[in-house]
Amino acid sequence: MLVVGELINASRKAIREAIEKQDAEAIQAIAMQEHEAGAHFLDMNAGIFVEKEAEYLMWLVQVVQAVVDGPCSIDSPNPKAIEAALAIHRGTPMINSISLETKRYEKMIPLIAGTDYKVVALCMGDRGMPETAEDRLNIADRLINKLVNRNVPMGNIYVDPLVQPISVNQTFGTAFLKAIELVRDAFPGVNVLCGLSNISYGLPGRQFVNQIFMAMAISRGLNGAIINPLDRRMMANIIVAEAMAGRDSYCMNYLRAFRAKKLEL
Amino acid sequence: MLVVGELINASRKAIREAIEKQDAEAIQAIAMQEHEAGAHFLDMNAGIFVEKEAEYLMWLVQVVQAVVDGPCSIDSPNPKAIEAALAIHRGTPMINSISLETKRYEKMIPLIAGTDYKVVALCMGDRGMPETAEDRLNIADRLINKLVNRNVPMGNIYVDPLVQPISVNQTFGTAFLKAIELVRDAFPGVNVLCGLSNISYGLPGRQFVNQIFMAMAISRGLNGAIINPLDRRMMANIIVAEAMAGRDSYCMNYLRAFRAKKLEL
Repeated sequence: MLVVGELINASRKAIREAIEKQDAEAIQAIAMQEHEAGAHFLDMNAGIFVEKEAEYLMWLVQVVQAVVDGPCSIDSPNPKAIEAALAIHRGTPMINSISLETKRYEKMIPLIAGTDYKVVALCMGDRGMPETAEDRLNIADRLINKLVNRNVPMGNIYVDPLVQPISVNQTFGTAFLKAIELVRDAFPGVNVLCGLSNISYGLPGRQFVNQIFMAMAISRGLNGAIINPLDRRMMANIIVAEAMAGRDSYCMNYLRAFRAKKLEL
Repeated sequence: MLVVGELINASRKAIREAIEKQDAEAIQAIAMQEHEAGAHFLDMNAGIFVEKEAEYLMWLVQVVQAVVDGPCSIDSPNPKAIEAALAIHRGTPMINSISLETKRYEKMIPLIAGTDYKVVALCMGDRGMPETAEDRLNIADRLINKLVNRNVPMGNIYVDPLVQPISVNQTFGTAFLKAIELVRDAFPGVNVLCGLSNISYGLPGRQFVNQIFMAMAISRGLNGAIINPLDRRMMANIIVAEAMAGRDSYCMNYLRAFRAKKLEL
């Protein structure tokens, strides 16, 4: 399971303020916590600063990588901002994200083609959000083919089937889960990742809903997630769910986590 | 989701002792707790008392139904014990269980044929425990057909695909989950129920494992479970998982549970 830490996102008030004050220590403290909690990549998003996004994204990457020995997920729809961040990023980043939307695809593909970056591939086309599992597979199919043709290896592609709120339509959960299965069955070499907190939008008790939905998604083949790695129960659920999904030989990882008291909540 | 409370089982020390002392109040206290926690049926098992099973099973049903206005699940492989309990049971019971094992089937079917009882149908044949999902479907298929031919309505059949410990083989979780889907797809009118605690046999932290596996099983179509209804997190996980699985219109049940603080753990 690839865990991307989601906390360094300027849409969160504390992060926005830290960026505005150029408070490196505040950012670094969160980055270190996410890293220690087990995040493999740290997502960096400065999207709310339209004019200064490139400058701030660079600053975030620099500040974080000064204290964390790990790669970032560069999170922006803006190729100039991504380019700026890539110029100073150490190691192999994740690009979050490309989609099948014509404009976004055309802007982003030159940054990704032929690299060894990991790439989040959103199941979004020019006709907006897909509703059914089959719509998602259809978009994923075309997007994966385009990426592979531009020399992005299958194993670096992280399809995000885009979860929608269950409070809006009670089929949105099952459609998303089915989409994970369809994509994994059709493209065994591809990864499926998501930021699943959208499932609980509009409901109270969101954290609990997200934790349970994670277990269901892992059982369908999800193998990456953009989450808050400081949510101990979420991280524990992932460990248990992976064992139940047959991805943990002899439950070794589960047993190790149990002994390390990571499952005591 | 049909919840069967599992606590009144003589293999548990406290229950065995209460039965031996004929301590009706001890049994009744547990029965009332299970009922109030939301169990729809209360399982009654006196199997360890080989000679006195029939007598004790009758006593349990009588004692429990003196204080709980709800049906029992009569849990025994012994048709004489079941018959004795049925003679004094009020309402429509569940029979736990029949299987495709020739001897067991032949002994149990006369008690069930043509009744409106709910019936647990174990995916077990003369060749022992099934291993793959397809083996389970095969047994379920034959057993369902036999039951329907003996006038047991589809809707009263609760197939138990029999979960086996993940600590023994890492594919046992996925095989079980797949079996739920196969049975539900092949027989949309049939229910699938299980006592899922076997999944965590041999592991530490069993309760947590069971809670997570429940969410996965519900997402595949499980709609009945033999569990400890006093496990508040298990009951909460069921409520969340049912909403995520698209079985809770407008999340009404979830929202009601949230307001009633049933999701505060």
